[in-house]
Amino acid sequence: MKIALAQLNYHIGNFQYNTDKIIEVLKKQKLLGTHLVVFSELSVCGYPPRDFLEYKAFVDVCEISAQKIASETYGIACIIGLPIKNTKPNGKNLFNAAYFIENGKVNATVKKALLPNYDIFDEYRYFEPSREFSCINFMGYKIALTICEDLWNFGNNPLYSICPMDELIKEQPDLMINIAASPFNYNQDKLRMEVLQQNCCKYNLPLFYVNHVGAQTELIFDGGSTVINREGSVIAKFNYFEEQVETFDFEKMEVGFKSEVFEEPADIEQIYQALVLGIRDYFRKSGFSKATLGLSGGIDSALVCALAVDALGAENVMAVLMPSKYSSDHSIADAEKLVQNLACKSMILPISSIAQSFEEVLKPAFNNLPSNIAEENLQARSRGVLLMAISNKLGYVLLNTSNKSETAVGYGTLYGDMCGAISVIGDCYKTLVYQLCNFINKENEVIPQNSITKPPSAELRPDQKDSDSLPDYDLLDKVLYQYIEETKSAAEIINMGYDSETVQRILNMVNNAEFKRYQTPPILRISPKAFGMGRRMPIVGKYLA
Amino acid sequence: MKIALAQLNYHIGNFQYNTDKIIEVLKKQKLLGTHLVVFSELSVCGYPPRDFLEYKAFVDVCEISAQKIASETYGIACIIGLPIKNTKPNGKNLFNAAYFIENGKVNATVKKALLPNYDIFDEYRYFEPSREFSCINFMGYKIALTICEDLWNFGNNPLYSICPMDELIKEQPDLMINIAASPFNYNQDKLRMEVLQQNCCKYNLPLFYVNHVGAQTELIFDGGSTVINREGSVIAKFNYFEEQVETFDFEKMEVGFKSEVFEEPADIEQIYQALVLGIRDYFRKSGFSKATLGLSGGIDSALVCALAVDALGAENVMAVLMPSKYSSDHSIADAEKLVQNLACKSMILPISSIAQSFEEVLKPAFNNLPSNIAEENLQARSRGVLLMAISNKLGYVLLNTSNKSETAVGYGTLYGDMCGAISVIGDCYKTLVYQLCNFINKENEVIPQNSITKPPSAELRPDQKDSDSLPDYDLLDKVLYQYIEETKSAAEIINMGYDSETVQRILNMVNNAEFKRYQTPPILRISPKAFGMGRRMPIVGKYLA
Repeated sequence: MKIALAQLNYHIGNFQYNTDKIIEVLKKQKLLGTHLVVFSELSVCGYPPRDFLEYKAFVDVCEISAQKIASETYGIACIIGLPIKNTKPNGKNLFNAAYFIENGKVNATVKKALLPNYDIFDEYRYFEPSREFSCINFMGYKIALTICEDLWNFGNNPLYSICPMDELIKEQPDLMINIAASPFNYNQDKLRMEVLQQNCCKYNLPLFYVNHVGAQTELIFDGGSTVINREGSVIAKFNYFEEQVETFDFEKMEVGFKSEVFEEPADIEQIYQALVLGIRDYFRKSGFSKATLGLSGGIDSALVCALAVDALGAENVMAVLMPSKYSSDHSIADAEKLVQNLACKSMILPISSIAQSFEEVLKPAFNNLPSNIAEENLQARSRGVLLMAISNKLGYVLLNTSNKSETAVGYGTLYGDMCGAISVIGDCYKTLVYQLCNFINKENEVIPQNSITKPPSAELRPDQKDSDSLPDYDLLDKVLYQYIEETKSAAEIINMGYDSETVQRILNMVNNAEFKRYQTPPILRISPKAFGMGRRMPIVGKYLA
Repeated sequence: MKIALAQLNYHIGNFQYNTDKIIEVLKKQKLLGTHLVVFSELSVCGYPPRDFLEYKAFVDVCEISAQKIASETYGIACIIGLPIKNTKPNGKNLFNAAYFIENGKVNATVKKALLPNYDIFDEYRYFEPSREFSCINFMGYKIALTICEDLWNFGNNPLYSICPMDELIKEQPDLMINIAASPFNYNQDKLRMEVLQQNCCKYNLPLFYVNHVGAQTELIFDGGSTVINREGSVIAKFNYFEEQVETFDFEKMEVGFKSEVFEEPADIEQIYQALVLGIRDYFRKSGFSKATLGLSGGIDSALVCALAVDALGAENVMAVLMPSKYSSDHSIADAEKLVQNLACKSMILPISSIAQSFEEVLKPAFNNLPSNIAEENLQARSRGVLLMAISNKLGYVLLNTSNKSETAVGYGTLYGDMCGAISVIGDCYKTLVYQLCNFINKENEVIPQNSITKPPSAELRPDQKDSDSLPDYDLLDKVLYQYIEETKSAAEIINMGYDSETVQRILNMVNNAEFKRYQTPPILRISPKAFGMGRRMPIVGKYLA
């Protein structure tokens, strides 16, 4: 039995595109003599379809697409993922399902039993968990087919009271297949591989695992599909962050392929690739090709610019330098150096005259009150307006350049530097921003060393430094990590040895910035806990952990 | 047995405030000889606490607060709502629970069985559904205590396979108590009352029902607590949108109170009150008192200004008139008339010089390209910057004035008129905006008649009218309602008799505006389907229903 795993990049709700892509692979694989092609979870509609699932018509189109795919399965079988209707009177309207299709017919339907409903996942919002389990017979083999999370309980996952493989194993299957939509974060590859290997060892069965690849707005699916033998040895490992289709001979594998050693790429490299894919897919899937961003001479915008050039090509990136009277000479020089290194487009739009216009109009209202955050924000917002004007007039999409540290504590101007269609590094703490820049510079200086080494500054008033308002980023990021990723309380963090006042101050800043974060662009997710759908906090809430 | 129902306005995570409020009622009721005081769902922490629940320390403080409340229950019992830990190894970490407290001790714990996980609800994200049911014994009576959604299945709600009252009735209880956090929408009061009355009739039991009141950011809890006898007759009905505590004599009720006829306020009045409470609580719970907004002379900003004056007082509202060269004379006159009628503060900040500064700086970049949306947005964004400057310098919080029709189709400028801390009428279609203005004007002209009758215009270019870009609002709103509230597909809407091209165009506009809506402020929810947490759509998705 020849099994092909198809690790593909789908587009949510783009049925024509997804169906064509699936059929193209089927046709190619038929010519190669493949017996079964496996596509990933919800491959027909893309993952996550979210509230499109509340449209009956959307679910109907999924079924129509499946039938279109079925008509291409004469001589080759396939497994596809799609939402299907729950025909029983009880339970939610839908199941998250897989069709096993052969000779134009759906010969088996598998429904997902374990529905993730934490962090970025909302599956229980739409789907009824299945409690029916049976293997699929194909070419004399019994296949235990499961969907993503279904393999994530060995009886010790407190979230679930059922273990689908414990049910399926009763039928004595010959192999496991799992179709997944498991999004990237920098811990996920190791964790996922552990879970998959443990399944093989526990059930003494080989596993064919297919994951989504590609970004869907903020979620980046990394692929990394794999084949693991019954001893838990990795037989094959797909690339991360790109499409790949590979065929495996089940019988040959059975008589003992020698397990290879697959080295995982370093986290920093994966994060870099994830961000590039995140930008590229946001543009491609939205129908855009050109990006603009404000280039300050600082490290954050420099990093975003370099990522954008890698994702979209230098000719498609327009860096806008917007110096004010508080901009230092080195800022402009550093920004220009970067533009030169990357060979992207650039323009200079000085903001002093605009800020002055605002201040003149506001003079009677400001009534000689001392200069404060209002004047600083005027500058940041003048830049936001200029960037959006470039976007509107010339068809560039604005990239946001805020990092996770400043997004966390609200050190940014709403409608100013917080503008943008997508936040590229909003899930990267400042300390990770430095690491990413050094990674980019590992062979030659792309990001000017001065942008990396100079003290961070918003340059919105004379001699301003980030450290005037914030703790050092080394300290800040550690405390933020404990609060955001580890959901530790102030008391617990202080007990770890951090200064009490500093911790309270940081946590207060995070909580008080919820209203700003609510209006922040979607943030490319690379950590286990990103701002956005994965972290849902009250805005008028008063609690300080 | 004297039972008091306490319909109170809690503040999420403000434990001191909530606990003090609960204890104050307990003390007063003890003096009145009350035996049992019932507080609403999650009263200890406020509803919805969202991801605060992922902080162990948050849940610990809930328990500490409960113990503080318990120490005030000598001589009086109470029921409070709070999250509690799931001590079993299986299932999610928490239960949504109620404590029955008497003489300083928690004598019974009831856990919610039916967990709403649709629309704005995410309860399955945090809570394990309970499968244990038993009545509470108090003063010789058996009380069937349930939590909110627990009463919403009569065996025919497909979302749930269990009906808690069907279990509890086996113990032959004497009465039902339900503690709720049921948010307002214009259909909810009738629906809720029906459900509660049906429960009384089905189980032949009287019901004491206590709901939350008050707004938590976008969610507005309307109260409307009630007592219903075993025949389904309404014995008492609490006010909407305000705190109220009432005591009832269970025995007297039993021998037959005459059922009163409680007239429900009209939807339009309820919506008006909901919006006023939404504004008021947003400010009060965030620690602010003063609001600003841009006043264009049009109907939307006029309505928001009138609502803000009712919510915060005229002295706390600053209307900012920002005429451009495209503003008509009547716009300024209408805005000034409104300011006069409302007696609120105002200032005039002309934007022509600012727009000119932007255009001068952008001249080389714009390169003589024809004037388009870029120049229009420059004006809207200049106004956004001015309003935020007033906010930053003078401590006013900016109210957003976009309506639901324009939010739906993306007829608004991101970082321009889409700015604001909270969107007041973003869940009100334009046609509802007219109704609300007429409601406000029913006794005397508050909103200038000319603002209501003139053709809507953004006034961003000469002689612009909304109808240049959009179908008439009467038609637009009907199609939007079918697509958004009723989740109908294009085909279904066209089948209702609407023009095919218009429907496709409108639905396309809605889907293409997801990226804008993602960055819109939280929207006060008054309908069964508001933009925000209740409607979660992919941004790069391609589907058109």
